[in-house]
Amino acid sequence: MQIFTTVADFRAWRKQAGFVAFVPTMGNLHEGHLSLCDAAKARGGKVVVSIFVNPLQFGQGEDFNTYPRTFEDDCAKLAAVGVDAVFHPTVEQLYPRTEQQYKVEPPAIQNELCGQFRPGHFRGVATVVTKLFNIVQPDAAMFGKKDYQQLKVIEGMVADLDMPIEIVPVDTGRAADGLALSSRNGFLTEAERAEAPRLYRNLIAIKAALEAGATDFVKLTETARADLENHGWRVDYVEIRDQQRLEHARPGDREVVILAAARLGKPRLIDNLEVNL
Amino acid sequence: MQIFTTVADFRAWRKQAGFVAFVPTMGNLHEGHLSLCDAAKARGGKVVVSIFVNPLQFGQGEDFNTYPRTFEDDCAKLAAVGVDAVFHPTVEQLYPRTEQQYKVEPPAIQNELCGQFRPGHFRGVATVVTKLFNIVQPDAAMFGKKDYQQLKVIEGMVADLDMPIEIVPVDTGRAADGLALSSRNGFLTEAERAEAPRLYRNLIAIKAALEAGATDFVKLTETARADLENHGWRVDYVEIRDQQRLEHARPGDREVVILAAARLGKPRLIDNLEVNL
Repeated sequence: MQIFTTVADFRAWRKQAGFVAFVPTMGNLHEGHLSLCDAAKARGGKVVVSIFVNPLQFGQGEDFNTYPRTFEDDCAKLAAVGVDAVFHPTVEQLYPRTEQQYKVEPPAIQNELCGQFRPGHFRGVATVVTKLFNIVQPDAAMFGKKDYQQLKVIEGMVADLDMPIEIVPVDTGRAADGLALSSRNGFLTEAERAEAPRLYRNLIAIKAALEAGATDFVKLTETARADLENHGWRVDYVEIRDQQRLEHARPGDREVVILAAARLGKPRLIDNLEVNL
Repeated sequence: MQIFTTVADFRAWRKQAGFVAFVPTMGNLHEGHLSLCDAAKARGGKVVVSIFVNPLQFGQGEDFNTYPRTFEDDCAKLAAVGVDAVFHPTVEQLYPRTEQQYKVEPPAIQNELCGQFRPGHFRGVATVVTKLFNIVQPDAAMFGKKDYQQLKVIEGMVADLDMPIEIVPVDTGRAADGLALSSRNGFLTEAERAEAPRLYRNLIAIKAALEAGATDFVKLTETARADLENHGWRVDYVEIRDQQRLEHARPGDREVVILAAARLGKPRLIDNLEVNL
């Protein structure tokens, strides 16, 4: 497995690499990331993983400085699953000027759901992913459904800007008790970790109600919110949206997704569940 | 010479094309465009020219609808200079959704000089050029110095978003009397056409003064503005800026550029002149 820390070195390798499937990450890798690598590996070409904690997508007071950096462990895991190349640039490699001047601006959806609580986050994601795409030049790129809104922003950006890249959604990895795998789970205390699966259980309960014909979306999401708040969560949102555009779902919509974000102690956890009616 | 009107057909051809030098245009081609093609041809690979009048870079009340469309004449000229492929998409091919959702946002320079008089213009340029780059995937792309601010926006965008493309600036083509070649010159009456070279003459006068040691930039540009206004021009700006960032030039700067935009009758003409002191 080759490791590249500069854009120039990576580009030189890329010229000879043929078909590339790409998994962009911020490191601190868990089974969820490795399933993205498996999906990339299944494409038959070379697998490239980037590890870069992107300052542009963290807001004021967010956890950029404390975001876990575990590069050596990450590389051991990636080598074990057969990744071909790791691109691990410094901040100076990706942002050599004092600040990023040109940005990719997503539409209004960037200010809803998680965007409402993380101003500028999806602009930062769209911009760094564009930069990584321009450096890595992948034929396919894997994105987890765990970050559902991010997946939709990337899908929209690639279509709208005519990027010649296939975006491959990969199902969310989960612990045995249902908790979605996330780097931020490591910040949970033992008691919080035991409580954490409640988020997913509420999504499952809403899904069951929708499949049973419920159409009072506000009541469904408010019930979930109340259950979480009664157990010590601070809820950012629980919402039911359509899968394609992430607009508010309306009774009669067939392809919807339940999305939630809430804080349990220090970390902010997100999860979602698609429902095809 | 091959002509493509759909993204899919062009992409199929591109896969086999090898090194591509690209000249994006809005058609209505004149000698200035053909010198861009010559520069592209000199690179030794295939030459691709796009012809697309981009609605996204025209503002309210601008000349999108009347912008001259002369596709057959254009193709004859391009074939004569040995262009390999013309990409001539419909508006629906490049903007299949009701509106472009994701945009490339340039920094504050987009609101100065021409940007002050054409709100959103450089956002529209940056966005369509990104789309064309993602479709054409050129190794090099030629841009005329005539549209100096556009050239600087594209250079900045390519560097900042890590696009793997060499941007090649090409000198402005001029008529024998000095008037910069432009599609919009066709809108000039005979009398206006005779008057039009005054714009360039004023740039030359400022250049001579700078080379003679003048440092009162405001006086130099105000003198030019007065000369133009006294001869029936409505002047948007005459400014002296540094070549790299287009910031206001200061005495002592070595690489500056004089830029001007003014209306003579209906059309708005722009021109510029680099000065290396």
